[in-house]
Amino acid sequence: MLVLVTYDVSVTTSEGRRRLRTIAKICLDYGMRVQNSVFECDVDPAQFAVLKEELISTYDSNEDSLRFYFLGKKGRQRVEHYGSKPVSDPTSDPLIV
Amino acid sequence: MLVLVTYDVSVTTSEGRRRLRTIAKICLDYGMRVQNSVFECDVDPAQFAVLKEELISTYDSNEDSLRFYFLGKKGRQRVEHYGSKPVSDPTSDPLIV
Repeated sequence: MLVLVTYDVSVTTSEGRRRLRTIAKICLDYGMRVQNSVFECDVDPAQFAVLKEELISTYDSNEDSLRFYFLGKKGRQRVEHYGSKPVSDPTSDPLIV
Repeated sequence: MLVLVTYDVSVTTSEGRRRLRTIAKICLDYGMRVQNSVFECDVDPAQFAVLKEELISTYDSNEDSLRFYFLGKKGRQRVEHYGSKPVSDPTSDPLIV
């Protein structure tokens, strides 16, 4: 199933920037970065459970937010993209919001 | 139908920051901001066509990207949220990515 992961991570502190990098790396283990804070992950339920656990153990529930969108087996048919290509470097921290 | 709008806008220039504010305001006319660059818009096909046209006429196709996810009529059942509450001020430009 295709699961969309989106996140806001507060980067006003060095700790926040560390969380941002870690969260991006976790997501990249399971899917493709399509925008700076948006990943598409093609996972089965067991893989999703692990992904979710890793993210929830990393983020700060008071500062950050995580959203999961369950797009289903034909999830890629639900998407339209316009403009510049998806970003690919999970460790970059560009001035893009 | 519920349509998720996600965007990356390059804010390395003042022009980019202006586009970012305009895009956020357009999205807010049609839906709810759930993360900094993520909006959920409950629209019919005619409304979506106008929303899409407004966004495409605003963004820079070389610098920015727009993605639309069509979540369907029961789209809200496809979502899980964790952490801090959705942001609400479309004109804010916080250090969150």
